[in-house]
Amino acid sequence: MQGIKEKIRAIPDYPKPGIMFRDITTLLQDARGFRKTVDEMVQPLAGTRIDKVVGIEARGFILGGAIAHQLSIGFVPVRKRGKLPWKTLSQEYQLEYGTDSMEIHIDAIQPNENILIVDDLIATGGTAEAAIKLIRAHKGNVVGCSFIVDLPELGGRKKLEALGVQVLSLCEFDGH
Amino acid sequence: MQGIKEKIRAIPDYPKPGIMFRDITTLLQDARGFRKTVDEMVQPLAGTRIDKVVGIEARGFILGGAIAHQLSIGFVPVRKRGKLPWKTLSQEYQLEYGTDSMEIHIDAIQPNENILIVDDLIATGGTAEAAIKLIRAHKGNVVGCSFIVDLPELGGRKKLEALGVQVLSLCEFDGH
Repeated sequence: MQGIKEKIRAIPDYPKPGIMFRDITTLLQDARGFRKTVDEMVQPLAGTRIDKVVGIEARGFILGGAIAHQLSIGFVPVRKRGKLPWKTLSQEYQLEYGTDSMEIHIDAIQPNENILIVDDLIATGGTAEAAIKLIRAHKGNVVGCSFIVDLPELGGRKKLEALGVQVLSLCEFDGH
Repeated sequence: MQGIKEKIRAIPDYPKPGIMFRDITTLLQDARGFRKTVDEMVQPLAGTRIDKVVGIEARGFILGGAIAHQLSIGFVPVRKRGKLPWKTLSQEYQLEYGTDSMEIHIDAIQPNENILIVDDLIATGGTAEAAIKLIRAHKGNVVGCSFIVDLPELGGRKKLEALGVQVLSLCEFDGH
């Protein structure tokens, strides 16, 4: 079969001129591509105890749901501000201009649980960093962050590794 | 174990006074609850050929990802207006005041594919109806809509059944 990287669609000038968007929907709608993606996202963690998957809104929900199912563990959403219905802890992160925040329910993570964070892509790593802080605030252990795509020039991997977190990705693209 | 219905959290007056919100995050963060939910959402369709799962943004992504993984098939997102990066078909639906629209990538569904639509809850059925129309516009066959929660007083199930679609749900709650 075609590799995972080849099944990702490149969309020039989206969401704005000069940006090459990496669209994973073409990968996920392919049965073998989806299964291979999920398998490869968890394979390096075989042997590690994982108690819950945290998926980052919104594409991280698709992958996180599948990975939690594969590992037979629970799923916890980290969502954008104002989207979770119950009591939340909130963590700001930097945008290109200004800040936004991510939230988690305060009963979602228990002390000493081992947590895998999942999203489709790591760019600057701002939302993943916020997720790490939210999990650590509840005394959870982040055992890894797993992405399909890494854009290494944007520095996200280094940012998370500096926090002591293992970063996994299936492929890399240059530039934005 | 506690049943699925008992693991769903009731949040009074959310998102506005008089509404009892049904929060499935307490169900999904529980390993056995999540697995049982996925198993029961697909069990009635055993023996039916299903080619792809369509998950409705955003909680339908969590369940849809898990169900696509369980069935070893592809996953297709139906998203709110402006969220999909490539060429889309758009379908309006009614809100309490005004309209909004859901979108699907134009290459996501092939003619004669059998499609299962997944979301967490059916209320008035507006977004699910939009998803059905988007799939049928691409000549896909909707073999079912599977939800965790049905709020029968809001009429969504009847609306979808009137379109000739099989509606599955794991539990019901009275009122909103």
